[in-house]
Amino acid sequence: MKVPRRKVYSLICQRHFSSTPRWRQIRALSELPDRIYPSYQETKGNDLLSLQWPSPPRNILLVKKENTPQTTEAVIEFAKHIHSTYPSISFILEPSAASDLHASLPFSVYSAPSPTPTTSSPKSNPTSTLLPNKVDLTTTFGGDGTILRASSLFATSPSVPPILSFSMGTLGFLNEWKFPEHKRAFRELYMSGAPSSRHSIMSTQDVKAENLPVPPVSQNARQIITNNGGWPELGASLGPTRTARVLLRNRLRVAITNQKGDLITPPHLHALNEIILHRGASPHLTHLTISISGRILTEAVADGLIISTPTGSTAYSLSAGGSIVHPLVKGIVITPICARSLSFRPLVLPNEASVDVRVSGDRGGVGVDVSIDGVGRQGIGVGMGVRVWGEIVGRAVDIQRREGREIVEEDRRDWVGGVPCVMRGQGREGASGDEGWVGGLNGLLKFNYPFGEES
Amino acid sequence: MKVPRRKVYSLICQRHFSSTPRWRQIRALSELPDRIYPSYQETKGNDLLSLQWPSPPRNILLVKKENTPQTTEAVIEFAKHIHSTYPSISFILEPSAASDLHASLPFSVYSAPSPTPTTSSPKSNPTSTLLPNKVDLTTTFGGDGTILRASSLFATSPSVPPILSFSMGTLGFLNEWKFPEHKRAFRELYMSGAPSSRHSIMSTQDVKAENLPVPPVSQNARQIITNNGGWPELGASLGPTRTARVLLRNRLRVAITNQKGDLITPPHLHALNEIILHRGASPHLTHLTISISGRILTEAVADGLIISTPTGSTAYSLSAGGSIVHPLVKGIVITPICARSLSFRPLVLPNEASVDVRVSGDRGGVGVDVSIDGVGRQGIGVGMGVRVWGEIVGRAVDIQRREGREIVEEDRRDWVGGVPCVMRGQGREGASGDEGWVGGLNGLLKFNYPFGEES
Amino acid sequence: MKVPRRKVYSLICQRHFSSTPRWRQIRALSELPDRIYPSYQETKGNDLLSLQWPSPPRNILLVKKENTPQTTEAVIEFAKHIHSTYPSISFILEPSAASDLHASLPFSVYSAPSPTPTTSSPKSNPTSTLLPNKVDLTTTFGGDGTILRASSLFATSPSVPPILSFSMGTLGFLNEWKFPEHKRAFRELYMSGAPSSRHSIMSTQDVKAENLPVPPVSQNARQIITNNGGWPELGASLGPTRTARVLLRNRLRVAITNQKGDLITPPHLHALNEIILHRGASPHLTHLTISISGRILTEAVADGLIISTPTGSTAYSLSAGGSIVHPLVKGIVITPICARSLSFRPLVLPNEASVDVRVSGDRGGVGVDVSIDGVGRQGIGVGMGVRVWGEIVGRAVDIQRREGREIVEEDRRDWVGGVPCVMRGQGREGASGDEGWVGGLNGLLKFNYPFGEES
Amino acid sequence: MKVPRRKVYSLICQRHFSSTPRWRQIRALSELPDRIYPSYQETKGNDLLSLQWPSPPRNILLVKKENTPQTTEAVIEFAKHIHSTYPSISFILEPSAASDLHASLPFSVYSAPSPTPTTSSPKSNPTSTLLPNKVDLTTTFGGDGTILRASSLFATSPSVPPILSFSMGTLGFLNEWKFPEHKRAFRELYMSGAPSSRHSIMSTQDVKAENLPVPPVSQNARQIITNNGGWPELGASLGPTRTARVLLRNRLRVAITNQKGDLITPPHLHALNEIILHRGASPHLTHLTISISGRILTEAVADGLIISTPTGSTAYSLSAGGSIVHPLVKGIVITPICARSLSFRPLVLPNEASVDVRVSGDRGGVGVDVSIDGVGRQGIGVGMGVRVWGEIVGRAVDIQRREGREIVEEDRRDWVGGVPCVMRGQGREGASGDEGWVGGLNGLLKFNYPFGEES
Repeated sequence: MKVPRRKVYSLICQRHFSSTPRWRQIRALSELPDRIYPSYQETKGNDLLSLQWPSPPRNILLVKKENTPQTTEAVIEFAKHIHSTYPSISFILEPSAASDLHASLPFSVYSAPSPTPTTSSPKSNPTSTLLPNKVDLTTTFGGDGTILRASSLFATSPSVPPILSFSMGTLGFLNEWKFPEHKRAFRELYMSGAPSSRHSIMSTQDVKAENLPVPPVSQNARQIITNNGGWPELGASLGPTRTARVLLRNRLRVAITNQKGDLITPPHLHALNEIILHRGASPHLTHLTISISGRILTEAVADGLIISTPTGSTAYSLSAGGSIVHPLVKGIVITPICARSLSFRPLVLPNEASVDVRVSGDRGGVGVDVSIDGVGRQGIGVGMGVRVWGEIVGRAVDIQRREGREIVEEDRRDWVGGVPCVMRGQGREGASGDEGWVGGLNGLLKFNYPFGEES
Repeated sequence: MKVPRRKVYSLICQRHFSSTPRWRQIRALSELPDRIYPSYQETKGNDLLSLQWPSPPRNILLVKKENTPQTTEAVIEFAKHIHSTYPSISFILEPSAASDLHASLPFSVYSAPSPTPTTSSPKSNPTSTLLPNKVDLTTTFGGDGTILRASSLFATSPSVPPILSFSMGTLGFLNEWKFPEHKRAFRELYMSGAPSSRHSIMSTQDVKAENLPVPPVSQNARQIITNNGGWPELGASLGPTRTARVLLRNRLRVAITNQKGDLITPPHLHALNEIILHRGASPHLTHLTISISGRILTEAVADGLIISTPTGSTAYSLSAGGSIVHPLVKGIVITPICARSLSFRPLVLPNEASVDVRVSGDRGGVGVDVSIDGVGRQGIGVGMGVRVWGEIVGRAVDIQRREGREIVEEDRRDWVGGVPCVMRGQGREGASGDEGWVGGLNGLLKFNYPFGEES
Repeated sequence: MKVPRRKVYSLICQRHFSSTPRWRQIRALSELPDRIYPSYQETKGNDLLSLQWPSPPRNILLVKKENTPQTTEAVIEFAKHIHSTYPSISFILEPSAASDLHASLPFSVYSAPSPTPTTSSPKSNPTSTLLPNKVDLTTTFGGDGTILRASSLFATSPSVPPILSFSMGTLGFLNEWKFPEHKRAFRELYMSGAPSSRHSIMSTQDVKAENLPVPPVSQNARQIITNNGGWPELGASLGPTRTARVLLRNRLRVAITNQKGDLITPPHLHALNEIILHRGASPHLTHLTISISGRILTEAVADGLIISTPTGSTAYSLSAGGSIVHPLVKGIVITPICARSLSFRPLVLPNEASVDVRVSGDRGGVGVDVSIDGVGRQGIGVGMGVRVWGEIVGRAVDIQRREGREIVEEDRRDWVGGVPCVMRGQGREGASGDEGWVGGLNGLLKFNYPFGEES
Repeated sequence: MKVPRRKVYSLICQRHFSSTPRWRQIRALSELPDRIYPSYQETKGNDLLSLQWPSPPRNILLVKKENTPQTTEAVIEFAKHIHSTYPSISFILEPSAASDLHASLPFSVYSAPSPTPTTSSPKSNPTSTLLPNKVDLTTTFGGDGTILRASSLFATSPSVPPILSFSMGTLGFLNEWKFPEHKRAFRELYMSGAPSSRHSIMSTQDVKAENLPVPPVSQNARQIITNNGGWPELGASLGPTRTARVLLRNRLRVAITNQKGDLITPPHLHALNEIILHRGASPHLTHLTISISGRILTEAVADGLIISTPTGSTAYSLSAGGSIVHPLVKGIVITPICARSLSFRPLVLPNEASVDVRVSGDRGGVGVDVSIDGVGRQGIGVGMGVRVWGEIVGRAVDIQRREGREIVEEDRRDWVGGVPCVMRGQGREGASGDEGWVGGLNGLLKFNYPFGEES
């Protein structure tokens, strides 16, 4: 019998107050200490940013591809390794994964209902905002789709924890690590920013003096942490130059507009890949009036329209004929879906543009379905539309200046915004920021292979 | 009889030492005072930059579309207007235009052989570097092709004077002004940066004290200038908020590489539109190995390859199937020409990437023709290639920091790099920087018009 | 209040037995005499076929675009003209049109429920087969969509009456006549095949001797007909060389297959434009295994797939990236919709091929929606599929030979199959069969117009 | 030292009258008996035609890919096998191949200068017409390009001998046999049409009585032939139902037109793949006015234009964005190369259309290069153009009727025209005519493989 997901969760919640041994319990997310925010800084000669933790991360969200046994095994193997090596770390799971896995793990896990992606009013779910306040970092086990799902758990949050992703099979575009690399990959990310000088001299008192958050989980773990300035002793330090390298992937912000063009949802929903407007099962083509920064560009008569990030340019937009856009390009990609026009080519707009797409009512008045990162959000009617902005990613100081705010001097080097993705093999000195993307593209273009034969 | 261009020029040069009235002479470019460099600064709420002259521009280059009588008439009308309103301004013409026009103008014009675009060693022409040192601003009369030609006169220069372009017919993509707007357009550009407070109080002494360059041209003109702190009295000042608005269009830098991958030309050639590698008249397809920032991406077997700026994305790249990329997007567009592969899609790379394209020798060894902004430069053989970088356009201070140079505080707001294009209708407050591009795109997409009929 | 269509019809049916004057009645289709079948023959030097009636057509179906008042007026004007000039002709209307129009017409019209297009079992409707047995010719008033709808009224019939179509606005691809041409157009079609010699010598007795069907409608009309061998006296005869020219547009035959690959519907449904398989509102891509004449070609992972006629190549297939295929090309066009592959190009297969598309169950098992000529027929599940054949159009004798049947000598010149479309301006001698298509294409390619400007 | 090809040939010609042993000589093509023409007939249930020799083929042309040693070895192996099994067969080689191979073969070969493909006046070469009069069948060793070259040896001939092609590596589109299949493949083709009943009863006298041509080559060979009604005893007969299966690939006929639109070359040049008009090394786009059957369709501003057969649709046309058209579709494919228009889609026209492409002189007047099947023929100037017709392929009786000629009854079943390509694996009963093409397409579409991953 297939038990609906919510049912399982409530069962789990009850069970955790009952007879299950404590180390196999599913505990409430709210029990965890609050999130630790890393900083991201430019370093010379590298397109990627250097991640630095102020203190060791403690709360790790594990997101896995559904219904694939080998992925489940990988998560278990990973969690056991982390638990034994970094005992102060707590694990957060999505409800269904918690239900599947907690019995296989010899320690408690934490869970909370994720913001149900299909609801159009995420506010109604009181726990939906818990994840962004608790998760220090996310690890994903699956492919690009799993990363997308992990990212959408933070769709309403301006600040997304860093994502470390492990591929279970063929590498995708988003530059996953291979699973056998998981020990090194995690250590690199965990230790990133640990100053070598602090390793030996900090005592528990130092920690307390610095008012570092102390995780409540385990006495043993705390012991280790307090003995070493926050970080455990793990052999030779990586040193300050060998930090995890992060690509801040731009997202798009989206809001629904009403017939008057006013926003009727807060513009706090973010897409890592794309926003799609599509006629769905309607037999009638959509008529979509596209405006760029307030000026009408054209009316598209089409099956639909894709507004995509560079990250999403290798997803549905590519199927619809869009160009492949490198994730470091700051742009918004507009790709029509089966336009009833011979001349509507895909566009790449600057990230600073705002894009309005309004359902035109002139010819029959058919509404459209809106979906965000593959999740159907709602249908909108004639006259309504979406407004889309590029997420501002950059040095905090530049953003402050652009917005006319007072410049906080210590923000000078920090970057904010985007989805921080830990890039594979980037901890090595001399590694180029393009390696990952070129690698992913190579996978795609292995099919760039001449047909036929030359005479 | 058609006289070769060089012949005409030498004839003209001789004539100008002979009996022609002085005001109809073609005089040598070297007689003109050195160039005045404007500054470009960000202002809040506008994507475009504000242009500011330190003192009024004096040397104007006029570039016109060839062989079109109505364009010639427009240039004459424009020059006469400018001469009577701004008598201190001198006119620079390309040699052939000087030859065509000087007899129709009641004043001297200046000329020098432009760097012959077809030569592969521009260094051999001693006068080719004169233009970048003398031209304060360029006006073009024609279409996008004429702007492209004007830009290529500065292909070896890191700093291009601002370009004010007038369309003679249908508006192109590069947002030309309509010719009937020429009086207002020029006044706006000319006065841009003139502080209203200085208009009345500066005297000749002030000018001298500030060591402003004094043009040698005309006593009358100098009188006017010195009477008014550099700027003539032209009625109400535009005021500091109403400056000309400039789009710095990124260019690409390109160098030829030899079989070892070393540069064999200095990387000082710039393209405003694109670099094209093509098999030309060869019956064999080219084999081009493409690397991005040192890492091999793929080998393209194709007629050729286009490496384009966003500005060039609406030119040949569009014909070859590329996306339309807004000129404010910082990116490099790679578009294959008739690839013998079904899967090589156009790419958009970040401006910071370097792109190497090497002619592969594996299958027969056919060289390719290289052309830059539509001008054939040379053929290159197997093993050779091109290296292409995005031109760095941005605030001087950011570039200094990125390159690890000492930061000069006064550069904090100034932008450098690119081709400064004066955007139409942008002097008005509240004008959006996107208007021009959306307008140009509208022209293209007027063809975005559904075919057939719906049932 | 919006009355459902069936309700209206039944109201109408009741009314026609009541007090409405007889000449405004809606009468039952079954009262009309049976259909007269024209023959189509090749003539030298013309790609189009010559239509010949054995006796004058009597039952005309009028199909009009819905909800457009000017089309309604045109239909009324047309019907009145035909009624006064050719009094023996009866008019058939679709039920909703009959309801709208009959009160405006000073004579009876005939109607029957059209085979409801959305039903998946047209057999259940006893009247659905009446139209093909009664309609001598169809006239349409609207655009390509209206022609498509008229054609789909005969989707289950191997023999479609000729269609004379009038465009109400811009000309479509299907080469409509302009409405102001309606008198000449109809006369040409009506008289097509009337031998000039027979006009004067045939008497009523001749007609009876030849056992020509005599329409029951009007004594006056019959008088005229019998006076002139079937055709009324309409001035100078067109002569045998000036017949209406007909393009037989190939259709596709389609049947649904079950998990075993057996047909579960009879293959009697025909599409004039295309069969579409689409994921509709499903968030999952379809996996479609395509076989050609029994051999697996590929599995398409895509939004869907279009199997189109050449006539349909300028409809949805063109939106999805297909080529434009001339309607005289005998081919089946296969065009993927947003394939998740970079290399699946549109295909054109020979008309003799059979195409099987099966919904693959390997990856999740999502069904697809099937629609035929824009009308959704049904959804099909995993393992099911469609089988599509090109309709055989050609000389009856060739078809008999190919199928190994005995050759009937008198069929030697006759063509069968397809949708006979009366082509505009083709009655004139010397007219080329391509004119219509090239004209329609010109309309499309008026947008084939170079962008930008040449330098 | 690289000896020019013509030099080699003249050396060879001299040598063959000198001291080389007779069986290693290169002998003159004119010594061979005249060509034997097979017939091609429809059979029920198979899209391909059945080939029947009236008597065994004697003169075989071997065409091999140049400069590939393994191909040379394959040709030697093949020739030795044929010589020992079918001793009456003579081998014809292209001059350069004859020069390379004759010393490795223990028997004479025949050669003649092939019509130099680059000459624009093939008439000037007196031997160019010899091949079509002497070659009974052609075997090719290489890929699609080699088949194309073999076909172009008969570019001026309306009747091309059947081509049996062996692939040396990856299979191309044209359905080559694999080389290890060569014994079976040749035997099937050689025996095709040999009536089993005649094998034993025909004597030399029968042969003479039937006036069958008797090859002069070898007394031994003749002995074998005359002993068995023309065919050697090769074990069990294939029987009449197991004949070689042939696809008649349509070609295009092309002629050059002058400024008045008159043909200035005879329309006897045929292309198996395509005719290309291209700007070549010119910096200017071509302006090409395209007319279909005398009616202007559009002016294409483009790099060039491809007019392709279905066979050529998987060659350059595919690179330029054209659809994949099955070779059994009777059509002409028009594909623009980098059109400066967003809306010029590839077209597929009926084989009966004639296509005129004229170089427009309006904007600058640039000529274009014309190439046919990859061989540059000549450049043509403004106002000139090409006229292209589909080759008529079909039953002789249909062509006679269409052209108004008297119908010769015995032609009722024979097909004429096209390039007869012996299809692989088609001799088996039940083999489908589509297998080859679907196989070739599979090779292409192995890249039809979804990118990325689904969530």
